[in-house]
Formats: sequence, C-alpha cells, structure tokens
Amino acid sequence: MADTQAFAAAIDWGTTNMRLWLLDGEGGVLAERSSGEGMRACMPDRFESVMEAHLAGLGAAPDLPVVVAGMAGARGGWREAAYLETPARLDALHLNAVCVDGAARDVRILPGVCQRERGRKDVMRGEETQLAGAVAGGLRSGLFCLPGTHSKWAKLEEGRLVSFTTFMTGELFALLNQHSILRDTLGEGAGDAASPAFRDAVDEMLADGAGLTGKLFSIRAAGLLADDAAPDAKARLSGLLIGAEIAAARQMLDNGATVTLIAGGAQGQAYEAALAAADIAYRTLDGSDLVRQGLFGTATALWPEGKAI
Amino acid sequence: MADTQAFAAAIDWGTTNMRLWLLDGEGGVLAERSSGEGMRACMPDRFESVMEAHLAGLGAAPDLPVVVAGMAGARGGWREAAYLETPARLDALHLNAVCVDGAARDVRILPGVCQRERGRKDVMRGEETQLAGAVAGGLRSGLFCLPGTHSKWAKLEEGRLVSFTTFMTGELFALLNQHSILRDTLGEGAGDAASPAFRDAVDEMLADGAGLTGKLFSIRAAGLLADDAAPDAKARLSGLLIGAEIAAARQMLDNGATVTLIAGGAQGQAYEAALAAADIAYRTLDGSDLVRQGLFGTATALWPEGKAI
Repeated sequence: MADTQAFAAAIDWGTTNMRLWLLDGEGGVLAERSSGEGMRACMPDRFESVMEAHLAGLGAAPDLPVVVAGMAGARGGWREAAYLETPARLDALHLNAVCVDGAARDVRILPGVCQRERGRKDVMRGEETQLAGAVAGGLRSGLFCLPGTHSKWAKLEEGRLVSFTTFMTGELFALLNQHSILRDTLGEGAGDAASPAFRDAVDEMLADGAGLTGKLFSIRAAGLLADDAAPDAKARLSGLLIGAEIAAARQMLDNGATVTLIAGGAQGQAYEAALAAADIAYRTLDGSDLVRQGLFGTATALWPEGKAI
Repeated sequence: MADTQAFAAAIDWGTTNMRLWLLDGEGGVLAERSSGEGMRACMPDRFESVMEAHLAGLGAAPDLPVVVAGMAGARGGWREAAYLETPARLDALHLNAVCVDGAARDVRILPGVCQRERGRKDVMRGEETQLAGAVAGGLRSGLFCLPGTHSKWAKLEEGRLVSFTTFMTGELFALLNQHSILRDTLGEGAGDAASPAFRDAVDEMLADGAGLTGKLFSIRAAGLLADDAAPDAKARLSGLLIGAEIAAARQMLDNGATVTLIAGGAQGQAYEAALAAADIAYRTLDGSDLVRQGLFGTATALWPEGKAI
C-alpha cells in the first residue's frame, strides 16, 4: 500500500479534467490517477465522492490531507477560494487556501489570482500553482507562457506574480474551426506546426500584429481560389492565432530575456516554433510536473509537521 | 402597371437576403421588393422561380432584362460568375457578366473580385457593385469601409479597385456572443456604441492594436470580478472588434484622407463613432442606394439601346 509513506494527496482539478497524486514527504510520486471528471462533470456536488473514490482506489488512508488547485475553487465549484490580487506571493498560496468544511478529511483548496487594473482585468485558477512550482524550483523572476484554451502570459518578480494577460487563442481556434465560415476550408487536418503555412502565418503576425481579424478570411479565400492545399489551412489558422499572441506578448519581454514555456506535446512544439520565429529564447517545462511541485510546496507549508516521515 | 416605364430589373442577391428593384431609364425606382430568400434559401435551383415570382408581383414584362449582383454568382449559386482580379475596373463589371442560359428572360450575373497576393488572398461578391455605384457617383479614388459579417476595406484609384482586405469583425462578434465563454457575460444587451465602454474599448485597440486576442477575456474577467455592469460587456466586445479593424485598416489610409463609410443604422453609428475616435474623417453613404446605382450603371452598359425610353 502506497499509504504507509504518503504525506499528502495533491489534486489539479480543472474544468474538464482532474489529476491526483499521492506524494511522499519529499514530493515524490507514490501513485497517481487522472480522469475526465473535471469541474463540469462534478457539478453540483460530486467533488467529494469523486475524490474519495480515487483516493480509495490508490489505498490512501482516511485521514490523508488533500490540497487542491484549479477550477474546483471557482464560484459555483466545490468551495469558492477567493482570488488573491496581483501582485501575489506565489510561495504563500496556502495562507489563502479554504478548508472544505464538512469533508471527511482535511481538504484545502488554493485561491486563484485576479488582476483588477482597468481594461486589463484578468483571472487565473490553476496556473498560479504551476507558477508556484516554478518558483519553488528557483525560477523566481521572468516571463512565463502557459498555452491553452485561455493562454496566460505571466510576469514574475522575486517570486511574486505581478501581472498577467489571458489570450483566448485556443478558444478562438476552436470557435473558428467548429462554427465559422472557415470550417469547411479547415477540413480535418491537424494544423501541424512543422508546415510552412504555420511558419509563414507566424511571420505575418510578427510583422503586422494588428491585423489578425483582417487575415483570418484569407484562409477562406485561399480555399475558394483553390491554389492552396487544404491541409495547410489549419496550420495557417494556428500560426495566425499563436503569432498574434506572441506579437502582443513580446511587448512584455525585457530585451534578450528568456521565456519559460509551460507546455508539452504538439502545443508545446507549436509555441516553440513560434517563439523561435520571433527570435525569443525559451526554456520548456512540463505543466503537470510544475503543478504537482506547486501543490507539494503548499502542502509542506500547510502541514509543516509532515505526516509519515 | 410600373412596367410601361421599366428599363431593367436589378437584384442584389446576398447570402441571406435578396432585394429587387424595377428601374426606369434614369435609374429611378419604379417598384421594389426585398425578402429573406437569399442564396441559402434558393439552393439548389430556386433562383429563377423566386425571381420570377417577385417580378410578377411587381407586374414586370416577361422580357424585362435583369442584372444581378452578389452571392447568386458564387460557385454553387445560380450561375458562377468568375472573379475579376485586382486591379479591377469597376465601370466594366458588365464585360464579365455571365448570361443565365436557359432562363426565360435575359438575366446577367455580375462577377465578384478576387485578390491573389500571397498571404492577402481575398474575395468579394456584391461589394464591388456598391463600389461601382460610388464610382458612378463620382467617388473614383480613396479608401472605402463596408462593415458587415465580413467587413471590407477597399482601396480605389481612378475607378479601379486596386486592393482590399476582409475583416471577420461581424462573424467574430457573433461567434463570441453565441458560442464562447463570454456568452453569459455578454447577456442580452445590444452593444450600444453610445456606451462609454464602447469608446474605451475602441481607444484601447487604437493604442494597442496588436492585443485583441489578449483583451477579449477581460470581458469575462470583469464579469467574474463583478465590478462592471453587464450591459457594457457587449459594447466592450463591439468596441474591441471594431477598434481592432480600424487600427489595422488605418495603415491603408493616406494622411488626412476621408474614408467613405458604406453603412447604415446602428452599425453605421458604431463605425462612425470609432472612426471619430481615431480622428479619421469620413462620409457615410447608404449601401442599398449604391448597389442599386451600380446595378443601374451596369444595366445601361449591357443594354445601351435602353428599352422603354
């Protein structure tokens, strides 16, 4: 049984997925689970039963404490954990964790972070814990890129999240792909970032970042004029959207600084290719590792006496 | 009967609507009809019967000739009228009109215009006839803005359409309003351009045109942070999208030149407000008048002998 060594359980509970780890006193992974039982699937009141089923499946002791990051803490989620405001100390998320009263074990949900600046209002839930993991690993300052449905670009200074911007890149891709006049042209392709069409589109947006809404229709026109191969259309859309994001975000970047890209898989490769096209230096880290490290750091702060050491 | 004076019928046949006029030899309107029987409703083969029913309803003679602009000439429409390429003479659309063979009367469908420049591929159908109407009225050069689902900005030089760009402004508004995470925040408001939120959003985009995809989510965040009134959300979205369009399009504008805005109603007012915010001089013309004038000019070139004069 993993349980004899377990110090805490950590859960990254997003909108569409959840991931759970049993961690030992050094943050090592004793066991893990992931499932599609995200916040949406758990509404209105299945959070605890879903969590307990996974913990039981991993043989966790009934008194093992649990720390949770992500949308489970949203209003209308499991328990609302009010937003911290920027600038926010990322090594102190535990100070604003909410305790799930009435739960059968000690469960703490971490807060998200909000930014209230006029015209730049923004929110995140989950990414702050990835960033806390990066801070715990020694990356205390710099610009971080977290691609996704709602990509975040976050500026850290000495372990504090000072500002961030959400780009609706992934959602716009999905909307245009599923519901727009571009739908037929985009076809069934994957939007491969290795396609020349991706790189060309990124270059266009870097040269002329203002023109995104005036470039999307060119995908449709190219299809109608029938002199572009269909598989390139999706790569072009991806390149335009990611290129627009990077063209805007690089304004936040100090000259010659390195961006920390928190991504993996095909999405990570696309952002790496686009950052390279923009001559931006980057390092790539795995988001799942970081959120686990961020959750572990918070757990050690919440329960400094440890449990099983 | 209107027919005794009629010189030709003119039809603006779009994707979702059609409008038909009986015109006399000076281009005066003897009678008109409009309906929701756009290209979509007429596919695959109802174009002629729909047209004949409206002509009969107006008492048109069976041999009255008809000139048609718009999506009826698209591939898969009534008859495909191949695109002219930029630069395109707008007083010579009739030279590339296609005759609908097999129709019971003389029916000519005008071509659209395409632009084949790499990365700026674009197409229009219908707007070229509005522009032809403007040329016929003496506006032979300058920058024209035609707002819509797919807004067009067109550059004319001496009666030639030399280049144009389509902005997916209207479609993006609809997609975000109907299908995105912003949907709930946008509520049921109208997006009034008189709202300060509209003007603020336009100003933001004019100052920082590159950031559209990084500004959309602020609408959602403002709703979550609950310190912005809901009715402003739609005005903010409208302002961001129209502002992004104008921020990009003004790069095509010669210093101090006047934009010709072809628009009406609430949409026209929104563009007027945004152009004013950008310190761009404009004149506003009615699109329906222009397309009718463009169709009439083409009809007089197609049938110079007239009919009933």
